[in-house]
Amino acid sequence: YAGTYGAPPPAANDPMWGYFTAIAGQDGEVDAEELQKCLTQSGVTGTYAPFNLDTCRIMIGMLDRDFTGKMGFNEFKELFAALNGWKQNFMMFDQDRSGSVEPHEMNQAISAMGYRISPQTLNTIIKRYNKGGRIFFDDYVACCIKLRALTDSFRRRDTMHQGTVSFQYDDFILCTMAI
Amino acid sequence: YAGTYGAPPPAANDPMWGYFTAIAGQDGEVDAEELQKCLTQSGVTGTYAPFNLDTCRIMIGMLDRDFTGKMGFNEFKELFAALNGWKQNFMMFDQDRSGSVEPHEMNQAISAMGYRISPQTLNTIIKRYNKGGRIFFDDYVACCIKLRALTDSFRRRDTMHQGTVSFQYDDFILCTMAI
Ligand SMILES: [Ca+2]
Ligand SMILES: [Ca+2]
Ligand SMILES: [Ca+2]
Repeated sequence: YAGTYGAPPPAANDPMWGYFTAIAGQDGEVDAEELQKCLTQSGVTGTYAPFNLDTCRIMIGMLDRDFTGKMGFNEFKELFAALNGWKQNFMMFDQDRSGSVEPHEMNQAISAMGYRISPQTLNTIIKRYNKGGRIFFDDYVACCIKLRALTDSFRRRDTMHQGTVSFQYDDFILCTMAI
Repeated sequence: YAGTYGAPPPAANDPMWGYFTAIAGQDGEVDAEELQKCLTQSGVTGTYAPFNLDTCRIMIGMLDRDFTGKMGFNEFKELFAALNGWKQNFMMFDQDRSGSVEPHEMNQAISAMGYRISPQTLNTIIKRYNKGGRIFFDDYVACCIKLRALTDSFRRRDTMHQGTVSFQYDDFILCTMAI
């Protein structure tokens, strides 16, 4: 066991540790606004607009297992891995490389992800997440995460695979207001 | 009927018409980003942070009867009236006048609005909308509008007033992704 004394904590060897601590600030954890600032500066959306704050909250909510609303280093790294996955997914569906997913591309994306959604519902979703007829990366991520979370909530309750679920009011509000 | 010829359109006499046209720009309608800019500059939240864009989308969605995602002059005026109502409501529940609604104040607000929500669900809602333990005006509005819209969707389907609703998958997604 010689040599373990005085060794730096594992995180200090990690190339992302310095980046994380700069973003996290004094409390050593990253909240939604710190994440927004970091993602806006990263230029990941390909626009100069601030990265959608609600997308940051949704992403933190997705990974925040200790329910503090903030991310430690491991959650932060997980989030960056997830974001890379979303970015590849987004670029795959942005077939004309316009930097955004247009309604017909979104249609294909949602079908390709295996969701069975009516044209009316699809239009409602596109209307909610588009800016001038285009869906940008930050809104795309919010839309995909919400759709997945809601579908998962539904499936967990649809134990008989009937495509119909009986919700009590409080449970319905819990499922739908959390994201 | 003499005298109606040559009269200006009613809007031109309205003191808000000039403000509306300045915000609406060339297309003569206000979209979510134009509304965000206008509400950020208005200082209505009492902070320097940009007004939450998703709150703007939710508010437009609430009033957008022709489903364009944009507001004409009458919808814009309706929205300002609604916002004034929300602001008064917010100030009523901000009992310590901190400029934000803290968890215990939110608890009282939601009860006072007549919602019957379990402590767990209430905590989830507060966790989703707070910033550093405080709920600011823009997030408060988003939270209240969503809670009302979801409750209305639920009640419309709960025709027997049983407190339980059977949702088909597509209908569930439609209700919950629209806001
Ligand atoms: Ca922090
Ligand atoms: Ca595209
Ligand atoms: Ca307060």
